[in-house]
Amino acid sequence: MRDRFLRACRREPTDVTPVWFMRQAGRYMAEYRALRTKHTLLELCKTPELATEVTLQPLRLGMDAAILFADILLPLEPMGAPFEFAKGEGPVIHSPVRTRADIDRLRVFEPEEGLGYVLDAIRMIRKELDGKTPLIGFAGAPFTIASYLVEGGKSSDYRITKQLMWSDPEAWSTLMGKISEVVRRFLRAQVAAGAQAVQLFDSWVGALSPADYATHVAPHVRHILKDLETTGVPVIHFGTNTGSLLEAQAEAGGTVIGVDWRTPLDQAFARVGQTRAIQGNLDPLLLLAPREVTLARTRDVLRDAGGRVGHIFNLGHGIVPETPVDTVKAVIDLIHSIPREELAAGR
Amino acid sequence: MRDRFLRACRREPTDVTPVWFMRQAGRYMAEYRALRTKHTLLELCKTPELATEVTLQPLRLGMDAAILFADILLPLEPMGAPFEFAKGEGPVIHSPVRTRADIDRLRVFEPEEGLGYVLDAIRMIRKELDGKTPLIGFAGAPFTIASYLVEGGKSSDYRITKQLMWSDPEAWSTLMGKISEVVRRFLRAQVAAGAQAVQLFDSWVGALSPADYATHVAPHVRHILKDLETTGVPVIHFGTNTGSLLEAQAEAGGTVIGVDWRTPLDQAFARVGQTRAIQGNLDPLLLLAPREVTLARTRDVLRDAGGRVGHIFNLGHGIVPETPVDTVKAVIDLIHSIPREELAAGR
Repeated sequence: MRDRFLRACRREPTDVTPVWFMRQAGRYMAEYRALRTKHTLLELCKTPELATEVTLQPLRLGMDAAILFADILLPLEPMGAPFEFAKGEGPVIHSPVRTRADIDRLRVFEPEEGLGYVLDAIRMIRKELDGKTPLIGFAGAPFTIASYLVEGGKSSDYRITKQLMWSDPEAWSTLMGKISEVVRRFLRAQVAAGAQAVQLFDSWVGALSPADYATHVAPHVRHILKDLETTGVPVIHFGTNTGSLLEAQAEAGGTVIGVDWRTPLDQAFARVGQTRAIQGNLDPLLLLAPREVTLARTRDVLRDAGGRVGHIFNLGHGIVPETPVDTVKAVIDLIHSIPREELAAGR
Repeated sequence: MRDRFLRACRREPTDVTPVWFMRQAGRYMAEYRALRTKHTLLELCKTPELATEVTLQPLRLGMDAAILFADILLPLEPMGAPFEFAKGEGPVIHSPVRTRADIDRLRVFEPEEGLGYVLDAIRMIRKELDGKTPLIGFAGAPFTIASYLVEGGKSSDYRITKQLMWSDPEAWSTLMGKISEVVRRFLRAQVAAGAQAVQLFDSWVGALSPADYATHVAPHVRHILKDLETTGVPVIHFGTNTGSLLEAQAEAGGTVIGVDWRTPLDQAFARVGQTRAIQGNLDPLLLLAPREVTLARTRDVLRDAGGRVGHIFNLGHGIVPETPVDTVKAVIDLIHSIPREELAAGR
């Protein structure tokens, strides 16, 4: 088995730096676009055979891990908050959750009932991977999911979410508690179904001040991550724009802390401490730059990580659809061509 | 004269903490909305009498400084890149600047010719203020202006801007050099016309990695700020999402460093060092929270600043239109009710 990724999660030495990419199964690949002409995104997610096919598509490029093809909003439907992906607008939640009554109506469900299709996909993918490449499961983190539920979609400033948080902290805590319990059960079920690592996506948490994070978010994240520790499976705790939250985020938990391109990796390792692995952090838009720039900046990320045990190469956020496939391949090949010991010697 | 603001810029002790708000003249005030039923935003900017009226409107709430009513995009028209504010969409630049030829066509103009109306407004406002309240002038910083020019409006990821920066660093440098020279001349002209301090708004620079900031942005900001030092007027160097850029931003210059709510002020003072004042940093959306929350969080900002000389209270970004006027007044009154010595003693 290609075990670099899992070894790095556990901070064990590896031959070279392991690499995977957020949204590595997606629209930048012709095979994926071809499938999307026949199926909606939600159809792909809800049909285990198709989710399996899409999950496996990018692996020919040489990533050290597969990541389940799914969407962080899938739990919304079984919670009682259906949504759709509106053309060019991103997700639209039909009835945003804004009042105490809305929150009370949200259901905490059993994953095998509400999201059985995801767990079926995991079982099918594991079978297909046949132990050759590890599989990462994932879920959205409570704040990020709450922001979609409350705003009714993507927001630029999370205004309604913050207003709920500040004006009715009890209702907010109930909402976050329900989401956390859904996420906790879902991630445990993913592990039970075969996920060998999981990532918690707190993509939008960087909109908060450290004080709001500590009071209104961290306790809920801790609830999930503390419980997942007992599974023995590594958990990647990811966020963007977390330059001021890194210590608090690490304190809330996670085997691996994922950072974006704003936080240089030498600083991330220093701030988070030697007890966690660090994942990151090439700006995804650098995959659209001229090839020599992309590769030079890839080398810079490796240099900043300095061959430390526990570095997992990734982007700072998801691959964008315009990314050339052969650039992705070239980046992976470059990363795999440099022994970790050589990077460590250069530090 | 109400001199707290200027004293704090120079890191001299003040009785209480000075306060002003970004976008303090704006849609949250009924007087402003009344004027906007008769005039477009650009008409207000381009008519010195109206710009003066709007600039003075909020001062009844007790701010320690007035800020010129204008827009960071005003220099675009005399540079040869006209734009309009499209209903509900923000600014739209008719012909985005994306090629070497586009950049070569941009004009570096004399402010008295291209933006004489802004300078007239400054002279008129100073006369009206009659030395009672200091006047802050401002301009957009090169990266932030470049992002509008290249993208053709507001962007969520600055993709085209970054692609230009990475794919043709020479063209990028020419573009940034032209904008910097326009901004340098414009800010010097504002000081000559009577601005007693100026703020450089690098609102969107937090989208960049520290490496990109150092290579592609900082030298141009330094060009402006170095030159402004010779005027003797304080310069506020502001950005949002700058948690990872603070030291580099301070190194590029500025008498005062402006930070958003993501960077606690005690950390900002520690990281920037004792040679600069610090401005910030209440989340502007906290002005929409219940009154007791707004005031408690205002006290938290003051506590984090700890009565250090050189703290100027402000929001982390501009006031939003939905802000209740009496909340703004209550925040100002609270800030003015606490002696700085008392805050310092509590540290």
